[in-house]
Amino acid sequence: MSRFPLSVQPLEEGALVDSGLELLTEAQCLELLGSAGLGRIGVSMAALPAIFPVNYCVHQGSIFFRTAEGTKLHAAAHRAVIAFEVDDADPVEHSGWSVLVIGRSEPVAEVAGGEGSGPLPVRAWAPGQRDHLVRINIDMISGRRIRRDSEPD
Amino acid sequence: MSRFPLSVQPLEEGALVDSGLELLTEAQCLELLGSAGLGRIGVSMAALPAIFPVNYCVHQGSIFFRTAEGTKLHAAAHRAVIAFEVDDADPVEHSGWSVLVIGRSEPVAEVAGGEGSGPLPVRAWAPGQRDHLVRINIDMISGRRIRRDSEPD
Repeated sequence: MSRFPLSVQPLEEGALVDSGLELLTEAQCLELLGSAGLGRIGVSMAALPAIFPVNYCVHQGSIFFRTAEGTKLHAAAHRAVIAFEVDDADPVEHSGWSVLVIGRSEPVAEVAGGEGSGPLPVRAWAPGQRDHLVRINIDMISGRRIRRDSEPD
Repeated sequence: MSRFPLSVQPLEEGALVDSGLELLTEAQCLELLGSAGLGRIGVSMAALPAIFPVNYCVHQGSIFFRTAEGTKLHAAAHRAVIAFEVDDADPVEHSGWSVLVIGRSEPVAEVAGGEGSGPLPVRAWAPGQRDHLVRINIDMISGRRIRRDSEPD
């Protein structure tokens, strides 16, 4: 059983969906999610889709980022379901992976999770007054990896 | 006047919207868009938002990428308005930029734009049968840069 409410059946490790493209298991996705620090969130902005980079951290099974007043905070304040993506690609090796999270977002009060119970160790992508902390619940997680031994087309 | 139908008033170069965050002009956005090769598109997947990485190129003022049958092609076939984002970040220097394009997508026949009028020089992110070419019209483009001389908060 998946621990995430919207997730599909967990996969066997190394399951192939297409030549050269491997679907990742939940455990692999969570490990990769914890290994990166810059992701992108997809939100609606004046009824149009938009994607912005955010620095993030994973704490107690949720994603946290900081932001200023604006589109991202507005989405969170309305508990919008948002997309969150992290990836890494090596254009020379032609290898890479991406992890996609879909979940409800909400503004939260400061969470103690840093060293010595300090604030969460996540800094806004852009400098300035960006002290609103937003949590994304991981309702669904999926990931894909390009296999290194594949021939690019 | 902006050459993109949905764009807001072009900005003066170096305009600051917030401490440390600089809005980019259309010309700067287009230059950065042309300098990268991996972007992310935001589409709807079963009424949920999703973000996936794609390799892309810019040709005659539009963005092109290749994909297999699936979510991204489905969105394009319905001429969905999609978000497309590219970014680059240096976590050590705490500098970075991101460019966001919003526009209609559509599947197109092969476009001659490569060397010797060959196919467009864009390869799918994942290997395998991914030979559907999709064009994203740039209806709106915007970009932001973190100023290097800013103090991170």
